[in-house]
Amino acid sequence: MAKKAETKPYKGTRDFLPEDIDRREHVTSIIRSVYEGHGFRPLETPAMERLETLLGKYGEEGDQLLFKVAKRGQGLVEGVREASEILAREGVVVGRTGETSPKAELLVSDIGLRYDLTVPLSRVYANELARLPAVFRRYQIQPVWRADNPGKGRFREFYQCDVDVIGTPSIVAEAEVAGAVAECLTRLGFRDFTIAINHRALLAAMIERAGIDPSKAQDAITVVDKLAKIGRDGVVAELAQKGVADAAGRTLLEMVEGADLAKVGALLAGHERGERAIADVRRVFELSKHTPASGFLSFDPSLARGLGYYTGCIFEIGVKDLAGSLGGGGRYDGLIGMFLGRDVPAVGFSIGLERILVVMEERGMFPQSIGRGPELLVAAVEEDRIEEALGLAYALRARGVRVELSPKVEKPGQARKDADQRGVPRALLVRSDGYNLWQASERDVTDRRVTPDELFAIVAGRRAMP
Amino acid sequence: MAKKAETKPYKGTRDFLPEDIDRREHVTSIIRSVYEGHGFRPLETPAMERLETLLGKYGEEGDQLLFKVAKRGQGLVEGVREASEILAREGVVVGRTGETSPKAELLVSDIGLRYDLTVPLSRVYANELARLPAVFRRYQIQPVWRADNPGKGRFREFYQCDVDVIGTPSIVAEAEVAGAVAECLTRLGFRDFTIAINHRALLAAMIERAGIDPSKAQDAITVVDKLAKIGRDGVVAELAQKGVADAAGRTLLEMVEGADLAKVGALLAGHERGERAIADVRRVFELSKHTPASGFLSFDPSLARGLGYYTGCIFEIGVKDLAGSLGGGGRYDGLIGMFLGRDVPAVGFSIGLERILVVMEERGMFPQSIGRGPELLVAAVEEDRIEEALGLAYALRARGVRVELSPKVEKPGQARKDADQRGVPRALLVRSDGYNLWQASERDVTDRRVTPDELFAIVAGRRAMP
Repeated sequence: MAKKAETKPYKGTRDFLPEDIDRREHVTSIIRSVYEGHGFRPLETPAMERLETLLGKYGEEGDQLLFKVAKRGQGLVEGVREASEILAREGVVVGRTGETSPKAELLVSDIGLRYDLTVPLSRVYANELARLPAVFRRYQIQPVWRADNPGKGRFREFYQCDVDVIGTPSIVAEAEVAGAVAECLTRLGFRDFTIAINHRALLAAMIERAGIDPSKAQDAITVVDKLAKIGRDGVVAELAQKGVADAAGRTLLEMVEGADLAKVGALLAGHERGERAIADVRRVFELSKHTPASGFLSFDPSLARGLGYYTGCIFEIGVKDLAGSLGGGGRYDGLIGMFLGRDVPAVGFSIGLERILVVMEERGMFPQSIGRGPELLVAAVEEDRIEEALGLAYALRARGVRVELSPKVEKPGQARKDADQRGVPRALLVRSDGYNLWQASERDVTDRRVTPDELFAIVAGRRAMP
Repeated sequence: MAKKAETKPYKGTRDFLPEDIDRREHVTSIIRSVYEGHGFRPLETPAMERLETLLGKYGEEGDQLLFKVAKRGQGLVEGVREASEILAREGVVVGRTGETSPKAELLVSDIGLRYDLTVPLSRVYANELARLPAVFRRYQIQPVWRADNPGKGRFREFYQCDVDVIGTPSIVAEAEVAGAVAECLTRLGFRDFTIAINHRALLAAMIERAGIDPSKAQDAITVVDKLAKIGRDGVVAELAQKGVADAAGRTLLEMVEGADLAKVGALLAGHERGERAIADVRRVFELSKHTPASGFLSFDPSLARGLGYYTGCIFEIGVKDLAGSLGGGGRYDGLIGMFLGRDVPAVGFSIGLERILVVMEERGMFPQSIGRGPELLVAAVEEDRIEEALGLAYALRARGVRVELSPKVEKPGQARKDADQRGVPRALLVRSDGYNLWQASERDVTDRRVTPDELFAIVAGRRAMP
């Protein structure tokens, strides 16, 4: 016999069986409904984007995690030849593990799979400017792909649920995206989450006040972001490695550690951009009193966020028992300019669907009955009843009942067992002398003879003809 | 100023703006609801599949249209080196247009984007056998990717809406998938479609009876499939090129041209497999009398279908004014065996979403009001009313109203104009001395002062608190 083919999904990707889809749709339908309630409109973009669109937006690490689509035909032949020459010229020793050549990757591909939904949105906004409203409010729920090492809750294909307001510098937009996200989480059943908030300009001001050279600001942000992971001494040590004096590092730490907004305000008195950033954060808190985010916002001066494109307020959603975040976001007033040639203000949030699902699963937060599986199994128990069973199935479907028809003659016991095992609450056995309806309720199991009228009354109830 | 970046979507792919999504969701929600009414359950699979999973299932042309994902790091370095050696050894002259090397493509990639939904389904069925019911009824609505030359209604990324029954050889399954597809089309508003039906074994029997060598059967099927396009003489000429004698070619043509089931039955009398195939087709007609496909089925002995994996009944959906089909399907009893090591019977249908949309657009088949855009625009007309407007927006959202909030202070005229242009039916202006509600109905436009109670009554009506 031939060797059985590999049937598992490709590393880091998953097949979603019906029960998985039920849970995913339970979550996405709530998110979609909340976003639409906020007046956001749907957008979808292609899986494939030009590499020039994707590269240089996410930072170096992001660029390395892009999936690239191989050129085809002549383009690939030329790419391979040139890549091979570069590899030879650069002395890349082929055969050792771990060696890569980004240049070679680029020569054999010019298209990649999208890494997030924010960069495609920015490209679309620049492309469709004339057709879109001045303030464009869009949501987007689609998969993204990253060639990361798979781990718990980390996949190579995963879904993001994004919501963004483009075209306004108003802080009301921050309050609305945070409010929308808080409403999503609340309606999903989360009660204990926090939306941490900080501001990129606030971080920059604190770094400046601590006496750290502005050229080291991005490094300092990256190190401070690890505070919870590596501790005070770890931060000071890593900052020292980046060339930041111990005293400056400790000053910065004092600023970001446990400081509230008033204290940071006092520290930054007279620092113009710092004071404006504090005013922004204060305004988000004020406005959020009127939104579902009220009570969930928490100022965290050590919050930094990894992505390169943020320019203003930044956010991160956390729950106690999950390392890592359920999502995050912020203002990115410079990204659209990379496509349009002039800056357009924008702010948004991204919820990670897989993380939400992991936590909801662990906490048993899914309602008992979700999904739209069949409500009735119809089976002929005699060969010459198949057409009657088929016609009956369609008559019930026309009344809005989800009916599974057994494609062959069934033994009554087998049909009942089959329905029971798969959670189909009712089974109808069609025989020449009439119908038997089996049903399992929470209280008991019944199996009785029914007339056609009784059948329709029980199964279709008062559902209107569509 | 920097050169403006390319912002159009990649060749053959599209961005879907809100109005596009509204139309797409109108169609997919009906299809989903019909499939679920038939007891089918949802499945989703990853965009990326191993190339070994995809290759050799669709025929040579299909293999060539696969998008391949470039290997990364060391794997790519080695692939490039080896591919470069092969290109040199095979004497591929680099630089001339149109030259390709499939071998080189395979050396730099081992993963591809899915080409259809049937092969991934077959892989999943083989992988999840233990967790799935004996007869597995699944639907799947997801994009697929093909490196085809884009044309009208032909894209590199497009959606298929598949429905399949796996695990039964019963013809009832054929009747049900055809019934489901007919119900989808009817509920979308199509009245004039046909579901052409034929049978692979019937084609094979006719080819045999015409005296054509069985080794040329697949060639003959491919040529006969072009009858409508190239005409009688074209078919005979092409058959001759494939080594089929003129007389045999003409005999085959007579069999498939305008023949009804009775006539084909007479022609194939005594041909065992041919007679069984005729019985299958007859049975589909009989059973379909009890399904929504009744009256839409049409026997077409020249129907062949391109894909390699069909083994029994084959189907194709046509409408008069569309060259090409809206979808098609058939029985493929051998495909799952390529993954599982033993054959499992299966039959299914695939509806092409883009084709449906093209025809519905041309015929004006979309209802006037689809989509879930904002029902009300709320705008503060004075700076100190922003928080009140925000709170009001959330109070109305809590009542289930889709509310867009203007993020900044608006001039009343501008807010009304903005709502009007974008089809938002109502605008609420929040001022220190009260609320003004503007609304455009089919009959007139009104703009009047309202109390909070009136506002809620008008806008939220009798909607319950969620």
